[in-house]
Amino acid sequence: MEIYLDNAATTKPADEVVEAMLKSLKEMYGNPSSLHRKGVEIEREIKKARKSVAKALGCSEKEVIFTSGGTEANNLAIRGLIKANKRNGNHLITSKIEHKSVLALYNELEDEGYRVTYLDVDENGFISLEEIERVISSDTVLVSIMHVNNEIGSIQPINEVGKIIKKKNPKALFHVDGVQSFGKIKFALRDLSVDSFSISGHKFHGPKGIGALYIKNNVKIKPFLIGGGQEASLRSGTENVPGILGLGKAVELMIENQEKNIHKIKHVKSYLLKLMEQELEDISITSKENEEYAPHIINVSLLGIRSEIMLHSLEGDGIYVSSGSACSAKKRGYSHVLEAMGMKEAYIDSAIRISLSYTNTEEEIAYAVDKIKKHLTSLRKIIKR
Amino acid sequence: MEIYLDNAATTKPADEVVEAMLKSLKEMYGNPSSLHRKGVEIEREIKKARKSVAKALGCSEKEVIFTSGGTEANNLAIRGLIKANKRNGNHLITSKIEHKSVLALYNELEDEGYRVTYLDVDENGFISLEEIERVISSDTVLVSIMHVNNEIGSIQPINEVGKIIKKKNPKALFHVDGVQSFGKIKFALRDLSVDSFSISGHKFHGPKGIGALYIKNNVKIKPFLIGGGQEASLRSGTENVPGILGLGKAVELMIENQEKNIHKIKHVKSYLLKLMEQELEDISITSKENEEYAPHIINVSLLGIRSEIMLHSLEGDGIYVSSGSACSAKKRGYSHVLEAMGMKEAYIDSAIRISLSYTNTEEEIAYAVDKIKKHLTSLRKIIKR
Repeated sequence: MEIYLDNAATTKPADEVVEAMLKSLKEMYGNPSSLHRKGVEIEREIKKARKSVAKALGCSEKEVIFTSGGTEANNLAIRGLIKANKRNGNHLITSKIEHKSVLALYNELEDEGYRVTYLDVDENGFISLEEIERVISSDTVLVSIMHVNNEIGSIQPINEVGKIIKKKNPKALFHVDGVQSFGKIKFALRDLSVDSFSISGHKFHGPKGIGALYIKNNVKIKPFLIGGGQEASLRSGTENVPGILGLGKAVELMIENQEKNIHKIKHVKSYLLKLMEQELEDISITSKENEEYAPHIINVSLLGIRSEIMLHSLEGDGIYVSSGSACSAKKRGYSHVLEAMGMKEAYIDSAIRISLSYTNTEEEIAYAVDKIKKHLTSLRKIIKR
Repeated sequence: MEIYLDNAATTKPADEVVEAMLKSLKEMYGNPSSLHRKGVEIEREIKKARKSVAKALGCSEKEVIFTSGGTEANNLAIRGLIKANKRNGNHLITSKIEHKSVLALYNELEDEGYRVTYLDVDENGFISLEEIERVISSDTVLVSIMHVNNEIGSIQPINEVGKIIKKKNPKALFHVDGVQSFGKIKFALRDLSVDSFSISGHKFHGPKGIGALYIKNNVKIKPFLIGGGQEASLRSGTENVPGILGLGKAVELMIENQEKNIHKIKHVKSYLLKLMEQELEDISITSKENEEYAPHIINVSLLGIRSEIMLHSLEGDGIYVSSGSACSAKKRGYSHVLEAMGMKEAYIDSAIRISLSYTNTEEEIAYAVDKIKKHLTSLRKIIKR
């Protein structure tokens, strides 16, 4: 029995994705930069993948750059936009609940001399539009806000944020980390005041090691990786062809089944929340069931039981959940997200994240909640003794 | 009929490599950062791959960092070493025949205010040890020299270069781009005065999108990609697990068969050179048959016929060769390497690169040379008219 409920950490590549990768590994193994047929045939496949990503993002093909993943996409956007537009000022804005690939980079930029404003979030995990409006100055070069938070699933109002930024300072740029929203929420970038947007293949049943960055037409950006001039000179290095083809296929599948899959995940989330409320005592569910939270991420505090202990107890039953994000998991459960929300230590220490895919079923959820209940009861007994 | 003689551009992944990748795509799909079993099992596999790379490079496991490829490895090394050691000075050294992922980055660093010395090469494609010794100053932070040139195969004397650098300025660091030498030449990094060394998976029958950087113990380097702290905080981003496992397997195969394969490639190169000299008129072979040139890269000028024309003519026969490197191929055949060697335009314009793998046979070479001869004769006739 294996019940994988850690889909915000990574997902299992779809069979069709693996097939698409195999094609490039076994047959179309040429270098896209080669002038001969073995290069040209691969270039055509890359173009197809880029088209799929553009369609899914609601942008044009030329606005899509393939990267080695979400971290590189965020790093390229942030470093590249700041470097290319440094004449616009020295002030940067982000939130306190960003993914480490944004937050740690902002810390580094602060060390390098930039002035950084880290926006607070409220107890539900949302930034304040008033605060954004207040802190944007004529000196602001870049604002970076994540779309869906990877630990609790809160959806930031990026449409409104974009409008406020552009109204207050039309030169200020807006980067959105969309790694956890892509495929889970419907949007079209052409309708939003967003200058760059990152996605990561392995979060939606594509492969690891590949991602993409949307960069709005005519927005100036400096490349991060320098060399052979691939990806319109914005991302040098021989293309990760199996990765790109796998990502392209994952995006195709995502577009095809988005309505159905989102509906299914919402349904399973609803079932999970109801069951937990019904069956589990002394818990606190952080991720609500409404349009302000993504359907696939559920953070819940199981009071009195440290998250790692619950995680390993469930592992014994073949159930995989997470304590916080995968990235920060190894740093002994410390969650900068829950802390920024002002959550009390007892709630932070006992928080687990259950993250869903369309592959998860009600039966799996029922089994998982049953096991959580069993462990909660016995672990709490041990502690009380 | 398909005769692939463009193995310096990229190679076909070995079947065993594809199998290793499939394992991570179909079964071990966890995130290595996850605390549960699905993370731990993958972490163990990554450790194995790292061990193989370390064994092949002749270094310790802790000195190996996985990257998204050769370009990122070179960029990480160069940017990271300079940034972490900038107090040592403002002077950088490289050669005029480096790969674009080094050369273009050095150009950028020059724009950023560094003083850069670009070493000349002689007519055979070698830097001069006397020049290196002369230009190293107390202000030199980093010297970056490629091991094997990707267009002509010349092997730079990195052992001697390292010794000279450390003798003249013990603080100056030495980066070696080993993308074209790894697996083709035997060496152990622990015997050399090299501080960092890059390799790329797809150059030795591994996958694209993955590479590695050796960084000598205790050498200070700043990370390039910042985020979740993977790869000992030197390369953040969820690990490209299929890529790493594929690379690990390719390295294993390489170690296992190195003697045999190098011997085979040398033999085929020898046969190719003999056959070309025997069968083709008005040609000039740049890559010699001696210990100063790598066994797998043969650059030859077929006077009077532009390289793209020959390339496409051979393509019609199912034979794939290159004009210059794959990266610079799209920039209309211009080769900065041949130019730096002082080669005359007629020789540069007609240069093709034939690059071998252990999979190539004498029969393939005989067929290819026969076709080159046929095209040379007919194309030269057309031009003379």
